[in-house]
Amino acid sequence: MRTIKWQNGSIVTIDQSKLPHDFAALELGDLKGVIDAIQTMKIRGAPLLGATAAYALAQVAHSSQAEKAEDMLDELERAAQLLKQTRPTAVNLYWAIDRIIGRARLYRGNAPDLAAYVVEEAQKIATEDSKANQSISSYGADLILDGDSVLTHCNAGELATVEYGTALGVIMTAWRQGKKIEVYATETRPKMQGARLTMYELKRAGIPATLITESMVGYVMYRRLVTKVIVGADRIVRDGVINKIGTYSIAVLSREHGVPFYVAAPRSTFDLTRYSKEIVIEERPHTEVTHLGSQRIAPEGVIALNPAFDITPMEYVSAVICEHGVLTRDNIAAL
Amino acid sequence: MRTIKWQNGSIVTIDQSKLPHDFAALELGDLKGVIDAIQTMKIRGAPLLGATAAYALAQVAHSSQAEKAEDMLDELERAAQLLKQTRPTAVNLYWAIDRIIGRARLYRGNAPDLAAYVVEEAQKIATEDSKANQSISSYGADLILDGDSVLTHCNAGELATVEYGTALGVIMTAWRQGKKIEVYATETRPKMQGARLTMYELKRAGIPATLITESMVGYVMYRRLVTKVIVGADRIVRDGVINKIGTYSIAVLSREHGVPFYVAAPRSTFDLTRYSKEIVIEERPHTEVTHLGSQRIAPEGVIALNPAFDITPMEYVSAVICEHGVLTRDNIAAL
Repeated sequence: MRTIKWQNGSIVTIDQSKLPHDFAALELGDLKGVIDAIQTMKIRGAPLLGATAAYALAQVAHSSQAEKAEDMLDELERAAQLLKQTRPTAVNLYWAIDRIIGRARLYRGNAPDLAAYVVEEAQKIATEDSKANQSISSYGADLILDGDSVLTHCNAGELATVEYGTALGVIMTAWRQGKKIEVYATETRPKMQGARLTMYELKRAGIPATLITESMVGYVMYRRLVTKVIVGADRIVRDGVINKIGTYSIAVLSREHGVPFYVAAPRSTFDLTRYSKEIVIEERPHTEVTHLGSQRIAPEGVIALNPAFDITPMEYVSAVICEHGVLTRDNIAAL
Repeated sequence: MRTIKWQNGSIVTIDQSKLPHDFAALELGDLKGVIDAIQTMKIRGAPLLGATAAYALAQVAHSSQAEKAEDMLDELERAAQLLKQTRPTAVNLYWAIDRIIGRARLYRGNAPDLAAYVVEEAQKIATEDSKANQSISSYGADLILDGDSVLTHCNAGELATVEYGTALGVIMTAWRQGKKIEVYATETRPKMQGARLTMYELKRAGIPATLITESMVGYVMYRRLVTKVIVGADRIVRDGVINKIGTYSIAVLSREHGVPFYVAAPRSTFDLTRYSKEIVIEERPHTEVTHLGSQRIAPEGVIALNPAFDITPMEYVSAVICEHGVLTRDNIAAL
């Protein structure tokens, strides 16, 4: 299933905020719509955000009235600035924008040709993500053995990517290889991507899966119900992995119980010139914690934290699976 | 604030399922009502469950038509059996029932006198809980220093006890002593006792408090935002502490970050003839995880786990605070 498509100047994707109850197409006709969909997490997942940003620039170019290529480039650069302000942590979005803007700057040709070039480049980014995830799934599946019970966090499936998924892609591929496995999926408070999206994908694939709250991770490990952990990533820096809030707690519990902790992510997620302390962790609206949907849970006026991500230092990571293979900590340091 | 009262043959308490939105009295006139209120967690908290069970037996005795004391004792024993089937893990409920039944068996007198004796014994149990919690709060407050930032899980406050609270009682007492402290409270999925009850109590007391999801515990420790952890207990056995699901994960994270991990509980919670492997961990309805209230979150047909408690091995516990003082692991082993 391809999660995002370019269709005659429109971006067609899935409104992930409505899953699992409604599988509804989301058609985005302009930049404002794309920015809103990213901020409200109708579109989410680091690799998918990269492809979305690329398509958003394609749309700007495609619908531009500019007569000169340099005017179109100005429009693209303004759009890039706005897109970069949507979500600060996942790096794929920046990576895709910088790639398109960088290449558009070097492009020599007229405005219509530049527009066609940007659309083509966006398509390439999407196709490359799909292929990368296929490779990740294949390399990662070698690490999953018959009888494994794999815990995953948040959603790193098809829905988080253009196609195939990363961490969940590994699980799906191992399952298709005939390995008898089962999955524990954390519900992933506050936005419930695990309960809503990962359980949806696992159920559709027919893989035996059990939903747990984050508070049960220690319990399932103590009971030896989990043999491996695999998660995605929003940004991989020199000294750690930045991923959905809760990942770090799971990594600590994994090491305490001798459970391997794997990260699966395409190279577009790697940002190896930086250290974790340089990265801005997005703080999202506190109502996501004090409320569930429109229903208030906590008393009025309560203060909450809502960091969308945390940092798992590299020493907790058993290996990172990317489209080039399985990287140990030393391999990553060498990159 | 006294959470439970005996009022002319009725048990008057608070419907905790309606907090923080409604502070509603819950008047229980018969055993069936009490059993339902325990099972649906309108009444919860290990020490409060002990007092509730005691009052339920008082009500059985008080409303009994039995002419002979031995017939009343039969009624009490049948009621005791039913009460013991409500929730299997927290020990205070068993302890209170066994104490009342044990003493009633030894009692020599007519039926009205036995009824009066059972009511008096239930009142004693409630008063003792209140006094024990006052002592716990006082001993525990000595461990809390000016400037501390204390994380607590679930609700171990007034609402979980007859009066004063255990873990939250310690925090409240330290605050009243003028220590400048702040609190991080976990929301406590799936039943949200932290978001609903602990934040309610902290807000009423005016203590600076921040609500977090369980997935943020690692994050706040990594960021050094927490200097101490204090939780209650549902049962303390020789080799560990059984408490609300999620406690064990917090204990592991505490040790990893060098944060002291304290447990506050009255002696009625101690069950030191047993080991953790002998204890039944209550598995609650899966809809508590797949739904929030009546709202379905996960797809139809999804399987979930819902253990209400987990086991924290004693090596993760820095000290247990009871009404006799602060006990180290070695002190507990010696008891």
